[in-house]
Amino acid sequence: MIQTPYLLFLGDAPDQLAAKVAQGIKDWRPDNAVGQFRMPGCTADVGLTDMTLAEAQAAGARTLVIGVANRGGAISQAWKKILFEALESGYDIASGLHSLLRDEGDLVAAAEQHGRALHDVRVPSVDYPIANGKKRSGRRVLAVGTDCSVGKMYTALALDASMRGKELKSTFRATGQTGILITGDGVPLDAVVADFMAGSVEYLAPDNDDDHWDIIEGQGSLFHVSYSGVTMALMHGGQPDALILSHEPTRVHMRGLPDYALPGLATLRDTALPLARIANPACQVVGISINTQHLGEDEAMSYMAKVEAELGLPTVDPFRTNANRLADALTAL
Amino acid sequence: MIQTPYLLFLGDAPDQLAAKVAQGIKDWRPDNAVGQFRMPGCTADVGLTDMTLAEAQAAGARTLVIGVANRGGAISQAWKKILFEALESGYDIASGLHSLLRDEGDLVAAAEQHGRALHDVRVPSVDYPIANGKKRSGRRVLAVGTDCSVGKMYTALALDASMRGKELKSTFRATGQTGILITGDGVPLDAVVADFMAGSVEYLAPDNDDDHWDIIEGQGSLFHVSYSGVTMALMHGGQPDALILSHEPTRVHMRGLPDYALPGLATLRDTALPLARIANPACQVVGISINTQHLGEDEAMSYMAKVEAELGLPTVDPFRTNANRLADALTAL
Repeated sequence: MIQTPYLLFLGDAPDQLAAKVAQGIKDWRPDNAVGQFRMPGCTADVGLTDMTLAEAQAAGARTLVIGVANRGGAISQAWKKILFEALESGYDIASGLHSLLRDEGDLVAAAEQHGRALHDVRVPSVDYPIANGKKRSGRRVLAVGTDCSVGKMYTALALDASMRGKELKSTFRATGQTGILITGDGVPLDAVVADFMAGSVEYLAPDNDDDHWDIIEGQGSLFHVSYSGVTMALMHGGQPDALILSHEPTRVHMRGLPDYALPGLATLRDTALPLARIANPACQVVGISINTQHLGEDEAMSYMAKVEAELGLPTVDPFRTNANRLADALTAL
Repeated sequence: MIQTPYLLFLGDAPDQLAAKVAQGIKDWRPDNAVGQFRMPGCTADVGLTDMTLAEAQAAGARTLVIGVANRGGAISQAWKKILFEALESGYDIASGLHSLLRDEGDLVAAAEQHGRALHDVRVPSVDYPIANGKKRSGRRVLAVGTDCSVGKMYTALALDASMRGKELKSTFRATGQTGILITGDGVPLDAVVADFMAGSVEYLAPDNDDDHWDIIEGQGSLFHVSYSGVTMALMHGGQPDALILSHEPTRVHMRGLPDYALPGLATLRDTALPLARIANPACQVVGISINTQHLGEDEAMSYMAKVEAELGLPTVDPFRTNANRLADALTAL
């Protein structure tokens, strides 16, 4: 678990997209960030107050989160001076970059010297158990996609926000590095050893109150041959009571796989539901989330209306509106 | 890749079952073993000539394979003297035990000193790629089970033997530690990191002659919630042309999961085939392998006749007979 709140390190981010992780934290867990730290030349701005290390510390910050992605995911030498200062002044550091903090000898030495923690959220920090399949108390929902990167994390975060807005008990359970940095906790599922995947999801979403919903972040797709095993482990370790189908209607082939077509939403439903029912016979498909970012407003609305009529399930783009109708579908279960 | 042939180390095995790995090597790849090495008190015997280290070396042995499983999978201190002698005299050592050779400092030092290799076949030794899903040349068959441990490895080895007996091109592709020790090569799939599972199977079963069959060793079960993700990665990384359904008819619940019933063979077929066709639209279910070890001869025969009539697929117990009918089904494809 990463200590919150954070100071968001934007470094020398060349554009707004490079600060995607910081933006996600600011958008979804504003209470987790007291401010942003920008180096000279940084052109990103997530809309938080610019603070020095000392100012942020005075405002309560405990962890410097690297909220910027370099080309190649490297830890820039240009950042090092600030990172050392942060460790010296009592910050932990957290990163979701491909290159690991723990592989930088100078940072490791400084962290040891000052008794601080380095969090590489791409790497599991727990010895997860093998899944035992026991029925857990509380309720769980999982978004499954026709493809990777169709908006499953966004849907889960929006659904969690809608549930909280309705004063319902809900926890977003992160399974990837961005989600882990946003919330400060989670399982980096794609980095877990095969035998322990489903067990790590059981660990992530344990027994809970009967009226509590875990909103488990989806990964991959049952139809994406590179990652389908990860998705399967999520379905069986997560034992969801509810599935949401996620889709991006302009995708012309599976992400990174030019020879593979996307399935339709009905095929996804008919494939995912029987597999989910192996772990939870009561599982239902409750709604559909469409990522309409590449459609105009009219086109998006008519596409969603068509899907809703065809599949008979509430269909939303949580980015255009919100996930309230999906939250209603959960509470109606 | 482990250098063959082996000397099979049975150590102080208290019974025949403890020497299961050595027995597997002797049964399936007798050419891979020149003899067995037994310590005083060993009561196992896999039917090979007892040899000293020097005698086996003179007969060509290059690797000492730990063919015995201790309680807890530990590397016994009682074995160490022989293991050191083996390294000194030029043997590599290979082990599939839970405890790793590489974690024994004294063995690591001795191996370095003598320039020998320590193979822990439970641990991946390759940086596998992420699966690219590209169609590969050659043909592949995979056994999928109603549960774990229903005879998938045995079926694959028997099928490989039948194919070779018919002078057809065939390679058994090991995905677990016993299979890897039997053949000297393979992928320890349950220890591969999630993102690379399907890629490791692509690596294991690469392009090949059009008339060559890779017999890929199955793992887990789509219906076993602890390991279903591993099975899914095998189906999508393996892109099988043919599936064999494997079943053990006396199992009362899924292995280790008392609350989970086994699916029927028709349910397994109807679940596995559409999933396999995501990676290979031409995939067919070609036969059924029943593990009848807990049935009498008459009971076994009538059970298999009933399954064959119901599912319309050649149904065999390769342990009672052989896998020739499954091999015929492959060549008829």
